[in-house]
Amino acid sequence: MDYASSGVDLDLEGSAVASLIGALGRSVRAPGQPGAPVDLPGGFGGLIEFGDHLLALATDGVGSKLQLASHLNAWGGVGIDCMAMNVNDLLCVGAEPLAFVDYIAVPKPDPEVHAAIGASLTEACRLARVTLAGGETASLPGIVTEVDLSGTALGFLKRGEAITGELLQAGDLLIGLPASGLHSNGYSLVRRILDHVNADLSDICPFDAAATGRAVRRFVTDADDAPTLGEVVLNPTRIYVDPVIDLLHHLAESGELGGRRSIRAIGHITGGGLSNLLRLHPTLGWVIDAPLPVLPEFTWLQEAGGVATKEMYRTFNMGMGMVLAVAAEHANGVVAWLQRRLPGTDIVGAVHDAGHHVTHAPSGVTFSHY
Amino acid sequence: MDYASSGVDLDLEGSAVASLIGALGRSVRAPGQPGAPVDLPGGFGGLIEFGDHLLALATDGVGSKLQLASHLNAWGGVGIDCMAMNVNDLLCVGAEPLAFVDYIAVPKPDPEVHAAIGASLTEACRLARVTLAGGETASLPGIVTEVDLSGTALGFLKRGEAITGELLQAGDLLIGLPASGLHSNGYSLVRRILDHVNADLSDICPFDAAATGRAVRRFVTDADDAPTLGEVVLNPTRIYVDPVIDLLHHLAESGELGGRRSIRAIGHITGGGLSNLLRLHPTLGWVIDAPLPVLPEFTWLQEAGGVATKEMYRTFNMGMGMVLAVAAEHANGVVAWLQRRLPGTDIVGAVHDAGHHVTHAPSGVTFSHY
Repeated sequence: MDYASSGVDLDLEGSAVASLIGALGRSVRAPGQPGAPVDLPGGFGGLIEFGDHLLALATDGVGSKLQLASHLNAWGGVGIDCMAMNVNDLLCVGAEPLAFVDYIAVPKPDPEVHAAIGASLTEACRLARVTLAGGETASLPGIVTEVDLSGTALGFLKRGEAITGELLQAGDLLIGLPASGLHSNGYSLVRRILDHVNADLSDICPFDAAATGRAVRRFVTDADDAPTLGEVVLNPTRIYVDPVIDLLHHLAESGELGGRRSIRAIGHITGGGLSNLLRLHPTLGWVIDAPLPVLPEFTWLQEAGGVATKEMYRTFNMGMGMVLAVAAEHANGVVAWLQRRLPGTDIVGAVHDAGHHVTHAPSGVTFSHY
Repeated sequence: MDYASSGVDLDLEGSAVASLIGALGRSVRAPGQPGAPVDLPGGFGGLIEFGDHLLALATDGVGSKLQLASHLNAWGGVGIDCMAMNVNDLLCVGAEPLAFVDYIAVPKPDPEVHAAIGASLTEACRLARVTLAGGETASLPGIVTEVDLSGTALGFLKRGEAITGELLQAGDLLIGLPASGLHSNGYSLVRRILDHVNADLSDICPFDAAATGRAVRRFVTDADDAPTLGEVVLNPTRIYVDPVIDLLHHLAESGELGGRRSIRAIGHITGGGLSNLLRLHPTLGWVIDAPLPVLPEFTWLQEAGGVATKEMYRTFNMGMGMVLAVAAEHANGVVAWLQRRLPGTDIVGAVHDAGHHVTHAPSGVTFSHY
């Protein structure tokens, strides 16, 4: 099985987005004005000028993970997923998240579902340290058949402090931050595999979900029991604001470990998997030779679906949700600092100047195109 | 016919939103910090602190107007609708729009539709004077059956310059800004009425759409011919950024007409119609005794659907998309200034202290609840 055959036509999506972008005009806000666009490579977050600061916006939704949440009537994590998809993108440019707004489209409003989503958004705001500045619920019975949840995050940074990848050089080391699970990408394929093997999401999980020490949030079972398969596949996306923003503040304020400039690039591993890293620099390459442990749900899904290894690394995070490229001489210090906040963080590879590729050395998988 | 019977259960929607809000916690950002929430009456835009400024976010979608756009394959106005719903909300707190992000959920990406939406968003950015700072296209065949388009606008204002309604007093005069048509609310009822009378949207419009001097955008017919009914019902929502922001800048910079403090409150007439004004002050009331001309599509829809007058004023803008409450001694000067930018603008009534009601005097309709 592969992602394309699970009902998502990536080429068509790419050409639709290209059509939209091709139809866009230049900004009406001139350089130097508040609101003028700031071009950065990577494009994880959209940046605009605002006096001595830059403001960043990111917008994204939870996607088809919502269909599993709906199937299990387990909405406690989706607000966290929605927040994570957005604020983790802001982190990639070095922006500190400030505020969030949610958009919920439903065929028919359901107060219980809304209360659960509200509670999940509240927890997400605490994890991402943002204010929920508003939201919209739209009843659209002719357009949506199930809940759709998306949102927009606003962040800021000081002018001159954007993380752009400009400083990236061969020899920089890659620090991987562990994922909490599938996060919020690849669920069309996940659902197809679950259907294929006739999986019952309320069954006890058929693999040891705690093998890597990762915690699984319980929607159904007690913490003392083994989690269900549904709980594992719905585990909320990790929000990386605490370790990354605290690291950036610490480096900027203390000047230790080479200061903030030691952090050369940050990649959020979302749809596209490891190929996301290609967005961060136009020519340099990335070699992952000591990856973080693969979470057991990925191994189980690969076997259950007979998915090619390259397809797995192009569709899923495989256990690493974020990558920091750090000046080599300070990488050990940065890792030690991060490990105290996020156990499981480790050096996974290095930046190379042998072509614009991402190579996952243990599996031999290589990506040359995003 | 009424709005509730057209498939939108307003009570259920209200209780779902109340459930969500009830589940929300306090912000983690303390007063004085960037991102701390700023409470304002009305709640049109969510405000946060940002140094000497406040930032405002508004999020909203086009709603079921999209189903008519889809039916006619006429996407040229929906980006303007989406922008208008958001930036017009920002204007209500006195925030100048800076940037916008769009979210498009589709069952299957279509490059032609995306190109048309992109062109419409570009025009919308020009009309609203904002930078398109990003966007997301989600393919969600299991969740949406047609295009859903929503977005988020970011605006700013100087601290201390928020338009809060605090200064509002009995005797302030109401200035109405003319609507361009149905704008983006009430389309479930519009669609029900169109079905009821078996209307053919490609027919020439059965009423004189130009009666009030309002221009109708042509998706199908030439400008010299009469517009179709479809073109009239899809006419894009008016974006009020030009007249309102230029007015606020002019008042602030020149100090003329009492300065910016002459503008006591601004209301965006959306779903809820005139009852929206009740959000702007907890005790004062509003009397509209000289309304702007009712646009002919409202009269036609009311007759075709046998809709009660009160229901019309609770569901539609009826020809007035925005209301400014202005200090009485400067209202004539402000109207004269606005009429040069937006013909059709006029004084429509006054603020009263005889109870928390909105009264539309010519029809006798009164609202006491939002």
